[in-house]
Amino acid sequence: MKNSTLTAAFVAGSMAFGATAQADILDVHMNIPKDLTFLADSAKLMDETLRNMSGGDSGFQLYGAGELVPAGEILENVSSGAIPAGWSFLGQWGGQVPVAQIGATPFGAGPEALAAWLHVGGGLEIVQRGFDPLNIKIMACHVTNPEPGGWFNKEINSVEDFNGLKMRMSGVGARVLNEFGASAQYLPAGEIYLALERGRIDATEFSLPIIDKDLGFNQIAKYYYYPGWHQPGSADILMINMDVWNGMSETEQAMYEAACQVSLQWTLAYAPSAQIPQIEEFEAGGTIVKTFPDEVLAELRVVTERVLNAEAEKDPLYGEAYRSMKDFVASSGRWTALQTLPAE
Amino acid sequence: MKNSTLTAAFVAGSMAFGATAQADILDVHMNIPKDLTFLADSAKLMDETLRNMSGGDSGFQLYGAGELVPAGEILENVSSGAIPAGWSFLGQWGGQVPVAQIGATPFGAGPEALAAWLHVGGGLEIVQRGFDPLNIKIMACHVTNPEPGGWFNKEINSVEDFNGLKMRMSGVGARVLNEFGASAQYLPAGEIYLALERGRIDATEFSLPIIDKDLGFNQIAKYYYYPGWHQPGSADILMINMDVWNGMSETEQAMYEAACQVSLQWTLAYAPSAQIPQIEEFEAGGTIVKTFPDEVLAELRVVTERVLNAEAEKDPLYGEAYRSMKDFVASSGRWTALQTLPAE
Repeated sequence: MKNSTLTAAFVAGSMAFGATAQADILDVHMNIPKDLTFLADSAKLMDETLRNMSGGDSGFQLYGAGELVPAGEILENVSSGAIPAGWSFLGQWGGQVPVAQIGATPFGAGPEALAAWLHVGGGLEIVQRGFDPLNIKIMACHVTNPEPGGWFNKEINSVEDFNGLKMRMSGVGARVLNEFGASAQYLPAGEIYLALERGRIDATEFSLPIIDKDLGFNQIAKYYYYPGWHQPGSADILMINMDVWNGMSETEQAMYEAACQVSLQWTLAYAPSAQIPQIEEFEAGGTIVKTFPDEVLAELRVVTERVLNAEAEKDPLYGEAYRSMKDFVASSGRWTALQTLPAE
Repeated sequence: MKNSTLTAAFVAGSMAFGATAQADILDVHMNIPKDLTFLADSAKLMDETLRNMSGGDSGFQLYGAGELVPAGEILENVSSGAIPAGWSFLGQWGGQVPVAQIGATPFGAGPEALAAWLHVGGGLEIVQRGFDPLNIKIMACHVTNPEPGGWFNKEINSVEDFNGLKMRMSGVGARVLNEFGASAQYLPAGEIYLALERGRIDATEFSLPIIDKDLGFNQIAKYYYYPGWHQPGSADILMINMDVWNGMSETEQAMYEAACQVSLQWTLAYAPSAQIPQIEEFEAGGTIVKTFPDEVLAELRVVTERVLNAEAEKDPLYGEAYRSMKDFVASSGRWTALQTLPAE
């Protein structure tokens, strides 16, 4: 971060102007606890990569959710310049920046396809246009593997079982379930466990098994459902105030772009093999792993398409992103089919 | 590259000590023409990333196959220090360094899983141990998507059709086909077209459709077979003489590691969506796209296992790599299965 007035309020508490007096250390405010498994590890890896490449001249000072800025107010503070940078789920800003909903698309791009669309399919340029009016530069440095379909206290045998279901869920997935009579809504991470334990909700989804574990849902829910139709792949972003970004040298900007790809590649490479040992540990403790019946997924898909098409009509930029992403995924579909080896 | 005596022979022709007199520009000798689509583009991207991050102080001077060193002699020249660095298919060195055969495994890891195993699954450390005695540091900066099963002038309806087939193919895949009575063997890129046209071979595999196109195989072969059972994913490596690597500063080494990941991520992201338009162009010109019957693939798989197990017994380090890779792929198999959405 450039030593500008933008962050005067936080200078005292930051290492940026302490031990490493000449370093361009960027204050990065996260929407999650800064020690959260996997979701925060990519930001730490990007910090480490920047420091190693620059000899300590570039890097992050990470702040967890609420440490200095509430998780829900990161966007407006980066936009105004009150803080220089944030790190969050892209889809979190769908209310203020509709194109951000592309951060996770039910029945949409999986993790590799989402990363590819963003970086070689023109996706990031489209999404950036939604953040330009806010004076925010975005970088897509983290893509999460499909999240499980959720923790449930009852079996889901047909879409009728969603009727009356109280579930913690956000975004388009929540709107889809509500079309089937559910009452799905967002709850922050810290409130989910108690709500599920007290019976105020019947089900919840949160993140990958290795992350859900930290929140203890296996202690209070019996069924762990798959696949994660609502979030086959989801992108997190680094948001940098555009004046701060423009104040960086070209070499520093290039290091940011490269360090971002290092983190992205790690998130894609690390996640798949890390989940099954955790799922097996849940199972050993009594969790029952289930998959939604195909008919249920087929009906969810139909309603999802309708909801997404309505969103696409409401906001032209989101519509452009949605169509571009769908076309990109389709373009590799036949390739994947041709190259699939029969099971052993 | 450090201004050492290692490259004295090539100094005159290199830009390293010309226009950018203070730059650490590494002479990188490739096993392919330096303008070959995709396969050379990742090396160019790594060069560009290094230059952008270092302000031009680091980067590559690329030499294509045979420009200064024959493609088959890159390994020994990097090892001796006669040249500082090379860029090639990892599997190319399976004769001298058996563990290098892990660069592509029939019925083995696909591109994402191969990249993940190398970088987060401990794979690269195992392979590096095979190159340590040669005083060579390796980096895995490029993974190619599955190659098609090959161009054929006759249909393959059963494994009997391999009997007597003369095919251009290398590595384990060739040894497997030969068990079925084929005569499969390596031919350099420049000799394949003529051999196929003159009928000295009946079939060939080379690389991805966008690359095969440049070699014109569609003009002289009728059938384009899938899937690429012999090479589901293949890794290319940057090889650096260990003394040259150790002579770099820690920040330069960190830039190399990051730039390598940038290239790797690009190869994974770019390849899938780029192939189908090319396949469709072939089809419009009369090429018939076919898939091997499942029974043929099942029989190829059985023989492949036998051949690979024999290799694993012959060379303990290759055996370690092979088992490690198989375990890693298996660890994400159930995750992928749980998360697969039914087709639309």
